[in-house]
Amino acid sequence: MPQTIAEKIISNHSGRRVKAGEFVIADVDLTAVQDGTGPLTVEELKKAGFTKLANPARTILFIDHAAPSPRKELSNSQVVLRNFAKETGAILSEIGEGVCHQLLAEKYVNPGEILIGADSHTCTGGALGAFATGMGSTDVAVGMALGKTWLKAPQTFKIEVEGAFKKGVGAKDLILHLIGVIGADGATYKALEFHGSTIRNMEMADRFTLANMAVEAGAKAGLFFTDEKTRAYLAERGRGDNFKLISADEGADYEKVIKIDASSLEPTVSCPHTVDNTKTVGELKDIKVNQVFIGTCTNGRIEDLRIAAEILKDKKVNPGTRTFITPASRDVMLAALKEGLIEIFVKAGASVQTPGCGPCVGVHGGILGDGEVCLATQNRNFQGRMGNTKGFIYLSSPAVAAYSALKGYISDPREILK
Amino acid sequence: MPQTIAEKIISNHSGRRVKAGEFVIADVDLTAVQDGTGPLTVEELKKAGFTKLANPARTILFIDHAAPSPRKELSNSQVVLRNFAKETGAILSEIGEGVCHQLLAEKYVNPGEILIGADSHTCTGGALGAFATGMGSTDVAVGMALGKTWLKAPQTFKIEVEGAFKKGVGAKDLILHLIGVIGADGATYKALEFHGSTIRNMEMADRFTLANMAVEAGAKAGLFFTDEKTRAYLAERGRGDNFKLISADEGADYEKVIKIDASSLEPTVSCPHTVDNTKTVGELKDIKVNQVFIGTCTNGRIEDLRIAAEILKDKKVNPGTRTFITPASRDVMLAALKEGLIEIFVKAGASVQTPGCGPCVGVHGGILGDGEVCLATQNRNFQGRMGNTKGFIYLSSPAVAAYSALKGYISDPREILK
Repeated sequence: MPQTIAEKIISNHSGRRVKAGEFVIADVDLTAVQDGTGPLTVEELKKAGFTKLANPARTILFIDHAAPSPRKELSNSQVVLRNFAKETGAILSEIGEGVCHQLLAEKYVNPGEILIGADSHTCTGGALGAFATGMGSTDVAVGMALGKTWLKAPQTFKIEVEGAFKKGVGAKDLILHLIGVIGADGATYKALEFHGSTIRNMEMADRFTLANMAVEAGAKAGLFFTDEKTRAYLAERGRGDNFKLISADEGADYEKVIKIDASSLEPTVSCPHTVDNTKTVGELKDIKVNQVFIGTCTNGRIEDLRIAAEILKDKKVNPGTRTFITPASRDVMLAALKEGLIEIFVKAGASVQTPGCGPCVGVHGGILGDGEVCLATQNRNFQGRMGNTKGFIYLSSPAVAAYSALKGYISDPREILK
Repeated sequence: MPQTIAEKIISNHSGRRVKAGEFVIADVDLTAVQDGTGPLTVEELKKAGFTKLANPARTILFIDHAAPSPRKELSNSQVVLRNFAKETGAILSEIGEGVCHQLLAEKYVNPGEILIGADSHTCTGGALGAFATGMGSTDVAVGMALGKTWLKAPQTFKIEVEGAFKKGVGAKDLILHLIGVIGADGATYKALEFHGSTIRNMEMADRFTLANMAVEAGAKAGLFFTDEKTRAYLAERGRGDNFKLISADEGADYEKVIKIDASSLEPTVSCPHTVDNTKTVGELKDIKVNQVFIGTCTNGRIEDLRIAAEILKDKKVNPGTRTFITPASRDVMLAALKEGLIEIFVKAGASVQTPGCGPCVGVHGGILGDGEVCLATQNRNFQGRMGNTKGFIYLSSPAVAAYSALKGYISDPREILK
């Protein structure tokens, strides 16, 4: 019986050939928590009397959500993680290193692995051909202690994307469009498996953007085959030996097939207050923007910053549009420094923040005022996401965000891109 | 009757020759508020029915204390300032432009002027030979509305500093030492007037550091003569025409004269929980540091960052010492980018924050956990200053802070400086 990528990886981790719908106990290769979820994981482990981790060197504690901390309560939570790392040998990723999902990609996740992380967007790792999924703090605690977890092998939606993007359109527009098509809960507990020439031609940065947002359609995972681009990504980060070919079997069983013609896509924006409330940028007139935010695990990579810099170079952001740019990791920050992008941003009047989640999660770094509008490259826009239920969040690509920062309202970057 | 600098400037602004101790109504050249104090100023003006400002072009509203905002309440306060600027024509300084006192120095304060600002460290402007002083929100509201304020001409302490600093010792050590000598309330409502060869040889950056902390001895102002260095500072910022010679008269009447031999000073640290609790770095053994913070209106200038970079270059901060560096303004950030300092910091494992007050005021950007120790280049260390009454704050120069970041405990930078 041919298998989907999800079925294959889960089979390899549970000692038997698994079909979608079956429940298994699976080996876990890698576990992760962040400063929002991790303290509860630690508490659960302590309550259960666990003092040893199954695999400390592959247990990563990230401080990224409130980094640096804006409140003493959060600072104390971060101290809990620091102490736990010392006690158990787990790896600590400190303030300023970056967003967990970006760092997992840069340093830890490998093709064919199972990663469970106490953060919804753990699915980002799927771009490297790993079965990577978000779980609650307690489930991750069990994974950390036992090196195993329970899973239901998910049914899979095959997403077939063909054709070339128009200039100014890309992976973020595709995934926002796709979520508009599927709906915010249309793929609950499914795997999204990406196929087609558009995906094969797509660089890793863009694959991460797609995988990252799989959960916004409710999906358990967003899965990708691996290829030479995957190999190169790993090799550049000293992990070439971890490369493994991952692909679905010919004739695997898909619950649904969704076909998208990439060449038909327009710059796409998710409007308040749901990710699936998508419109093309052309449909949005006179949406004044008080704040632009470029960054996050969705779009804070060097490729994203390059696009923003191309648009902002030698220009000034609109005085009514404060603009925050937050590289997703220290490595991204360093690359952006070396390429002169940070200087372009600062000259343009933008503010560059410490690598990390930035204002995305609504705990610091640019909370909206009542009635204010933010256009962000992040993955979520529910009411209150950025710390104020009276704020309005639109989601877009870095190109739309950067150009809108110049104009002061939501605008089509094709007006400026050559 | 010969006059002190304070007496001279106040006389020039009140239409008569004033002696220390007299009460006057004085013209105000420049007023400023920040996002902590400004909303109350606006409220007071509205309550009093003022819709016009005496001098909108010299009324500056700074958003620097919670920049970017970590809470919706603060975001809404910032909206109040933005709207007030639109209504009145006052100048708005947005998130990311920098700390009010640094920007007042770079752009607005001139020799011989009176500046009142709703922030304690407004005294920073004294380094440019201005009578610059902090007042409450309501007093500044009156100054904004009427272009006048009331003052008692302060008695003056003459601070005479002679001799050359030893390597690794500088203005911050001098001012911490001086506050240790005077006491935190030893100069309440006095002016500190700086004299001597050490001051004459001192660059503007260091004079700002001294002026900035005058209020930490309780002083109403920290006053400096002007000279070629002042002229050059203004000229480099397009304000050369605003230069004016400011000096005290020979034989002016000082309440007290304090003499300091700069060559006898050691790297000096203020210990918890008062600025006047000073010790030399050699007296402090085994003080483990969880957080180092280099920045603020006291020590966030390019000269400060150069010292930090000299120490951090090609080295790594201690893994147990998270290190934050916050340039005092966008211009400082840009200069640091051009000189490669930001890259040095990021490579060293430090986190660079958006120009502004950073964690100094305890609302965001690095709040301490219970029992944690911060070594900061800021001007205040009272209990709770950095957002947690259970934290411990030590104050030092950028050199001591940067070297301690490498070592993980409070250390003497002369071990590394050539």
